[in-house]
Amino acid sequence: MRLKICIEYDGTSYVGWQKQQNGRSIQEEVEKCLKKIFKQDISIFGAGRTDAGVHAINQVAHFDINNNLDLNSVLASMNFFLRKNKNSISILNIKKVSKNFHARFSVKKKVYAYKILNRKSQSPLSSGKSWFIPYFIDLEAMENASKFLLGENDFNAFRSKNCQSTKSIRTINQINFKKLKDEIVIRILAKSFLHNQVRIIVGSLINVGRGHWEPIKLHQILKKKDRTFAGPTAPAEGLYLEKVLY
Amino acid sequence: MRLKICIEYDGTSYVGWQKQQNGRSIQEEVEKCLKKIFKQDISIFGAGRTDAGVHAINQVAHFDINNNLDLNSVLASMNFFLRKNKNSISILNIKKVSKNFHARFSVKKKVYAYKILNRKSQSPLSSGKSWFIPYFIDLEAMENASKFLLGENDFNAFRSKNCQSTKSIRTINQINFKKLKDEIVIRILAKSFLHNQVRIIVGSLINVGRGHWEPIKLHQILKKKDRTFAGPTAPAEGLYLEKVLY
Repeated sequence: MRLKICIEYDGTSYVGWQKQQNGRSIQEEVEKCLKKIFKQDISIFGAGRTDAGVHAINQVAHFDINNNLDLNSVLASMNFFLRKNKNSISILNIKKVSKNFHARFSVKKKVYAYKILNRKSQSPLSSGKSWFIPYFIDLEAMENASKFLLGENDFNAFRSKNCQSTKSIRTINQINFKKLKDEIVIRILAKSFLHNQVRIIVGSLINVGRGHWEPIKLHQILKKKDRTFAGPTAPAEGLYLEKVLY
Repeated sequence: MRLKICIEYDGTSYVGWQKQQNGRSIQEEVEKCLKKIFKQDISIFGAGRTDAGVHAINQVAHFDINNNLDLNSVLASMNFFLRKNKNSISILNIKKVSKNFHARFSVKKKVYAYKILNRKSQSPLSSGKSWFIPYFIDLEAMENASKFLLGENDFNAFRSKNCQSTKSIRTINQINFKKLKDEIVIRILAKSFLHNQVRIIVGSLINVGRGHWEPIKLHQILKKKDRTFAGPTAPAEGLYLEKVLY
């Protein structure tokens, strides 16, 4: 049967979601725990790759098993084996899905959240969980700038030079801003994203928020289709895969 | 001149606020950074001691210096030197106060917040920041039980056997409960607290919330004035010194 799992993780000490030669990945740790439980190699498929250091509030993955086990027991066993990773990966829930479900190919939309701590001093209690910016940020200017990125566009200027996607056309459905006390959260909704797209968008928006650029600049960058014109890639520690919609 | 500072810290790897022989304390790290800045020994006085592993959203302390330095520079220098402690201590603000102000003796009220994560699975993103309880908790029963503890009472049953206070009479002004999604926050307001008082109260309230005890049991424990009748000391990682009122 096919099982769908939701996963929360602190990406700080991982090379990212996907298995790689150069370090520990979330995928690898989850597959290792499945091997311990089922005594066989089981591959899992995630909704999306998250980069090194990026967190997930709710990543989704699926895998197939032949056993007909009690799902609460599978959940408990997975979390038991995952706990040794300094409590950095947790399976939130597990459920049976049809064989037609694919964690990646069935995705309708994904929400990434980017958190910014905007105050004078760092926060020890949310260390490594947001981008610390101790300067004034003009939220309204950022909101105005973000409107140029909505809809279907060629985001070639807003993707990593290492991006492996053959096409750079993507559709951004929403960009929302929320401020609660010292924390700004920028949420971006799209079906799929290019490599580093959210972080380069955030880095560019912050250039607007800090007054270095006029909002219209983001429209101009989009038209240039050249990475060198966009802002810096915002740090991984502020980025969260928040929701996957099917 | 006398300076008042507000401090946020992640208490996880400290022996507590107060200087001790057996490990690193917050007080010691702050005094060390002051020594680096002012090239002399400066003692700081905190609003209250927090135990090993207990966090502070807003601890308050004061110290005296002879220099007439720009306060923004002092703040920046302190945070510069504190940063080496893996960003676990941060000075939030600093201001000049009168010589009559004393961080401990001028306290009018203190608020401690206790955070509980109440869901099936651990949360990697708030690891070490709350008490994880994967069982049903009856909040209403806990609220009813908490009412027996309000006002002036002898809290001898609700203090550590190591508590050094000569008296065990304390006045609790408020106990509030808030639930937001999976997180329960219990806030306790009082002028002063006994050693482990908040954690023993929370441990006892949770015994009620889990259905092991009727709410009236807390009234009975109070009357017994004996630590052995109260509940367990709740883990340090869920406790926060949240606010100090002067």
